[in-house]
Amino acid sequence: MVGRFFKLSLSLLVIFDFIGTVAFAVSGAITGIQKRMDIFGVNILAILTACGGGLTRDIIMGNFPPQMFINPFYVLVAAVVANIVFGIMYFHKGIPQKFSGLYDRGLFIFDTVGLAAFMVDGVMIGANFGYEDDLFLLVFLGFITGVGGGVLRDVLSNQMPAIFVKHVYALPVIIGGILMVIMHELLGTWNLAMVLSFALVIVLRVMARHFLWNLPKVNL
Amino acid sequence: MVGRFFKLSLSLLVIFDFIGTVAFAVSGAITGIQKRMDIFGVNILAILTACGGGLTRDIIMGNFPPQMFINPFYVLVAAVVANIVFGIMYFHKGIPQKFSGLYDRGLFIFDTVGLAAFMVDGVMIGANFGYEDDLFLLVFLGFITGVGGGVLRDVLSNQMPAIFVKHVYALPVIIGGILMVIMHELLGTWNLAMVLSFALVIVLRVMARHFLWNLPKVNL
Amino acid sequence: MVGRFFKLSLSLLVIFDFIGTVAFAVSGAITGIQKRMDIFGVNILAILTACGGGLTRDIIMGNFPPQMFINPFYVLVAAVVANIVFGIMYFHKGIPQKFSGLYDRGLFIFDTVGLAAFMVDGVMIGANFGYEDDLFLLVFLGFITGVGGGVLRDVLSNQMPAIFVKHVYALPVIIGGILMVIMHELLGTWNLAMVLSFALVIVLRVMARHFLWNLPKVNL
Repeated sequence: MVGRFFKLSLSLLVIFDFIGTVAFAVSGAITGIQKRMDIFGVNILAILTACGGGLTRDIIMGNFPPQMFINPFYVLVAAVVANIVFGIMYFHKGIPQKFSGLYDRGLFIFDTVGLAAFMVDGVMIGANFGYEDDLFLLVFLGFITGVGGGVLRDVLSNQMPAIFVKHVYALPVIIGGILMVIMHELLGTWNLAMVLSFALVIVLRVMARHFLWNLPKVNL
Repeated sequence: MVGRFFKLSLSLLVIFDFIGTVAFAVSGAITGIQKRMDIFGVNILAILTACGGGLTRDIIMGNFPPQMFINPFYVLVAAVVANIVFGIMYFHKGIPQKFSGLYDRGLFIFDTVGLAAFMVDGVMIGANFGYEDDLFLLVFLGFITGVGGGVLRDVLSNQMPAIFVKHVYALPVIIGGILMVIMHELLGTWNLAMVLSFALVIVLRVMARHFLWNLPKVNL
Repeated sequence: MVGRFFKLSLSLLVIFDFIGTVAFAVSGAITGIQKRMDIFGVNILAILTACGGGLTRDIIMGNFPPQMFINPFYVLVAAVVANIVFGIMYFHKGIPQKFSGLYDRGLFIFDTVGLAAFMVDGVMIGANFGYEDDLFLLVFLGFITGVGGGVLRDVLSNQMPAIFVKHVYALPVIIGGILMVIMHELLGTWNLAMVLSFALVIVLRVMARHFLWNLPKVNL
């Protein structure tokens, strides 16, 4: 029974990794295009954004060489996604006025989905490494794995990481991570915890954006 | 006797780590507030600035998962400090004219203390790892551990790292590191070496700022 | 026979590392001077640019402490180079009009040579670690090792990494890496593969610059 749950968690994890990779590849590609990178630069930024969460996770867990260097699968997925995004934008250049908010909204959605998916990945990898009961490590690992790709994307495209300035960006991923670990403690299974916390991160971020939730700032 | 010295060095090390954590947390929080981050962004930047030196040290020494992921203590200290700084600034918004130099001066002091404390930490950890007689490694490790938090803070807030542009920033920490290793060779104990080199870094930086010491630049 | 080839490859590798170190030290020093850093900042940026490729390589391969912390040789080489560049520029300040393109061209040449040399280094180190037949890992490792120093230089001097925006920057290093691995498969030796792929990267980049080759961009 435990074995089945564990196997199911692992296949769910592959699905989340795939979703996160695609989502962050799109967000990296859009950012690269906005920053006037050529098609090759767009590919590299998309790959590093998509694999940055896993890279961060592998470095933290001391897993060398990191997965992205050994297994070309997610690198290839990110490259394919980047070229599709590039192709679509290339042939629709000069976005029609009615789509003016498209980039921003598209970037938001894909960035949020990638964030949620890699948060789940980080928590699960920490659990698989035997830290199943260490709430702090799991949530922190999920957080850093989740934001790693986006931070790498933003630092490499010379802009302030979204994590610091966007409406309620990082708080949802922390809340999602805590929920995931607590639900696992209560239910004894990761599956439902993974799906629900993934959904919670997305719902919280979408609500924050829709209702313009903001955390306090100092007015200098 | 050796055992007692070693234990004393270790407790001194904890004190330096604590001082460095508090100082860099303040500097990270001030930078985040200056960059118009919200309270959560300020917390994250403060934590990464405060724990960035230790993170750099752990990665260099191959110590995974890095300390900050396993031991919540310094992360908590940094968060508490960040919220105190945020609270103070929030309720004193619109700093009175007479405090106009406050941010800059505050940032300088806390950044300098953090730099000095983590330099000491880096040298000591290298020594504890058995590189006690390797001057180059110890000084270099102390240097990178010292500047790691500040560089992370500056890169993440999208500004040129202070290490490259500020009056005599990095030289004092190198001199302090060399002094620390040489004093240990001469005296056979780390304790005095730690305290004196910590003080020296701070004194050198304060003097450089006060007397406007500058290193040569090329006028293009 | 195999032993002799291997030894020859290793001595060639030392030569490439030396060339890459000098070239990237020059490029880091020029960038630092352009960014108005003082002589110490110029030294640090030159060292980090020159040793950044090896640092990236060591982190990926899980080689801690990284080579640059243990062996002062390349750090010293980079520092000497940085001070020579600084000295020359310092005493020729106010570059004569006829040399106006000098910085840009000099930066290009040294950056390209460093890129090519560290690409070779990355592939060779991967091969020496036993991944001799893993095309993906070797090429990817060569790529990241090659671009690591330049990316570190650009991120630390707060500009968009050249890899994303310059004429046909990253593609030549990928092509060179693929050629190197394939030539080794065909010829059974690394030596010729190293030299030819090193030359190919440089020729491709020089041609791309000369003929203004550009990859497609999206016109927003």
